[in-house]
Amino acid sequence: MSTLITLTTDFGIRDAYVAAMKGIMISIAPSATLIDISHEVSPQDVMEAAFVLRGAVEHFPPGTVHLVVVDPGVGTERRPVALKHRDRIFVGPDNGLFALVLDGEQPDLIVELDDPRFWRNGSPSSTFHGRDIFAPVAAHLAAGQPLEGVGSSIPQLAPLHWALPTIDEHGVQGWVVHVDHFGNCITNIRRDSYEELHEGQNFKCFAGSVILNSIHETYGAAAAGEPLLLFNSDGLLEISVNGGNASDLLSIRKGAPVNIVFTSR
Amino acid sequence: MSTLITLTTDFGIRDAYVAAMKGIMISIAPSATLIDISHEVSPQDVMEAAFVLRGAVEHFPPGTVHLVVVDPGVGTERRPVALKHRDRIFVGPDNGLFALVLDGEQPDLIVELDDPRFWRNGSPSSTFHGRDIFAPVAAHLAAGQPLEGVGSSIPQLAPLHWALPTIDEHGVQGWVVHVDHFGNCITNIRRDSYEELHEGQNFKCFAGSVILNSIHETYGAAAAGEPLLLFNSDGLLEISVNGGNASDLLSIRKGAPVNIVFTSR
Amino acid sequence: MSTLITLTTDFGIRDAYVAAMKGIMISIAPSATLIDISHEVSPQDVMEAAFVLRGAVEHFPPGTVHLVVVDPGVGTERRPVALKHRDRIFVGPDNGLFALVLDGEQPDLIVELDDPRFWRNGSPSSTFHGRDIFAPVAAHLAAGQPLEGVGSSIPQLAPLHWALPTIDEHGVQGWVVHVDHFGNCITNIRRDSYEELHEGQNFKCFAGSVILNSIHETYGAAAAGEPLLLFNSDGLLEISVNGGNASDLLSIRKGAPVNIVFTSR
Repeated sequence: MSTLITLTTDFGIRDAYVAAMKGIMISIAPSATLIDISHEVSPQDVMEAAFVLRGAVEHFPPGTVHLVVVDPGVGTERRPVALKHRDRIFVGPDNGLFALVLDGEQPDLIVELDDPRFWRNGSPSSTFHGRDIFAPVAAHLAAGQPLEGVGSSIPQLAPLHWALPTIDEHGVQGWVVHVDHFGNCITNIRRDSYEELHEGQNFKCFAGSVILNSIHETYGAAAAGEPLLLFNSDGLLEISVNGGNASDLLSIRKGAPVNIVFTSR
Repeated sequence: MSTLITLTTDFGIRDAYVAAMKGIMISIAPSATLIDISHEVSPQDVMEAAFVLRGAVEHFPPGTVHLVVVDPGVGTERRPVALKHRDRIFVGPDNGLFALVLDGEQPDLIVELDDPRFWRNGSPSSTFHGRDIFAPVAAHLAAGQPLEGVGSSIPQLAPLHWALPTIDEHGVQGWVVHVDHFGNCITNIRRDSYEELHEGQNFKCFAGSVILNSIHETYGAAAAGEPLLLFNSDGLLEISVNGGNASDLLSIRKGAPVNIVFTSR
Repeated sequence: MSTLITLTTDFGIRDAYVAAMKGIMISIAPSATLIDISHEVSPQDVMEAAFVLRGAVEHFPPGTVHLVVVDPGVGTERRPVALKHRDRIFVGPDNGLFALVLDGEQPDLIVELDDPRFWRNGSPSSTFHGRDIFAPVAAHLAAGQPLEGVGSSIPQLAPLHWALPTIDEHGVQGWVVHVDHFGNCITNIRRDSYEELHEGQNFKCFAGSVILNSIHETYGAAAAGEPLLLFNSDGLLEISVNGGNASDLLSIRKGAPVNIVFTSR
């Protein structure tokens, strides 16, 4: 089995930026298999990159190298890193992204990518470390180079935390953290924390222009064109419209508040 | 030669949904080659998915597994299926999509995907069968599992039919079934049925804001910026503009009527 | 190592056009690895295709086959060609695209693709040579067919030249040749020609709605939201906004003039 390298960037798919990285990686690691996670992360949105990556990483086999280049600070002081966590390798800028992906867990090993032998031409540009540092290092790792060998060990990642919903006996105040391709509005309210409190109480959920008071299992359980609440396949509360685009129809954007108020038993 | 798996969905390319399926498939079938057909099918548009798939399937080698997830009824009563037709395997929801792709032909074998051993974790979510049922089954099939083994045989697919143009001695009444990336307006009027009737008669073709009366062989046969009719590389009548976007310039959208009236010999 | 085939087209990613080419290629060359460069070249924009390709080609290993289908003259008199240059193979329409990619250098060998044995079905449609001629020839080349064998040698490519900036002792007059996914406005002003003249003089650079008078090394060297000039990772002068979309914020589009006036030493 060839080693997998996944790619997550905010580069879009019009330009040659992604292909430049792929050409470099396949030159260094000819037997690697390259799989795109997304190149449509909103420009420089480190949190969105982490959210997207979290939806994919657990489904890839052990040993996969995850290359992530969402890098608003390219060329400045943020460190280029590679790290290992639960038999997965991550490579990219240390700008909080990986702290979010690991959700506060400590990696087994973190190295700063300070060894020019593993860079492209040994001398990176100051504006495209994806091509000049991260892609070649990811490929060397996929080709069998041990993580210890590509840079100097450092003790910890730059910190960044997900803001969490407020939960008490009166209800839950969260917000929309992602609007997906279908217009589903995904919140930061998790099924487990909700269920712990809810215990069969009635509730009203205020989101955008609607008030909802029940949770469905499937999109099709609501009438066509009707809004609904469900816990999605990752366990997060989602506001959707059966057969429609909830974000457009209900005027709910990323960041919009979603308030659940328990009303009675 | 590794087994091919193609992917056709309405998931878009921003989110992790496609990558989750790919990670699962490559874990189960490490030597499979994954090729995207399209992830930009309009949300829940089963007919468009079938149209796109029909443009690609015949070009893939025998034994290819075609995974299709355009699934407005996910979690409801539509059956998850896999089927074999002319040495091709298809996997996806039985919502009429495959009846359209096969154009009424009967598959060699259809199985309902009711064996949890081939699902992800044996227990699917109710909102993402692409990840939890279809992708793992497609990968098991690509890895050599016989179709008979992944579920119970069922006699037939859920039916769905393409509406056909009306053809008589006065003319042909069809409509636009697809507007492509270039703005070419592709109709459901086939070259063979048209030629059978036409026999060298003069005609007028009414489409959007233009009337056309001849059929060209190439886009470049019309002057730059001028509208034209041609039969495209799949044998379907197409309204185009040489060097321009016919849909935008002529105000022709999907579903727009296209009427050919024979005028004289 | 399997042979690489890269794909660059203006086909977009919604339709089956790219997948049809991939199915044909993987049928002919089952062990080839297919890598997308871009399918989002603006429709029929030969210069943009050349610009994108130039950003990727040098990063791919020797022997890679680069398939390029941006083909406004499909079916008309422009010749289908394959050519070799510096151990790279290119396949596509001879419409000036390859002259731009090679920047006036002469290929080692050019063949016109006039041998129907290497076409799909030996008989191409007049509207989709990507599927019927270019993809099958690219795959035969990737599968080991020598370039000499797929058509008749011809002496030279159809010519096309990049317009170059005007440079004199008073300054440099160039323009924006590409706006990338981030809104960075990339000009045709090269670092080397600029530095030769500049010799530490002060300057004003007029671009869209701003006047800039210094060149930064990184995006982050300007304040957040502020415009800046830098030489990008390919050595071209770029107008950017730190953390923003320069094209939108400064109203600079492709083709916009960028004038550098030297003011004093």
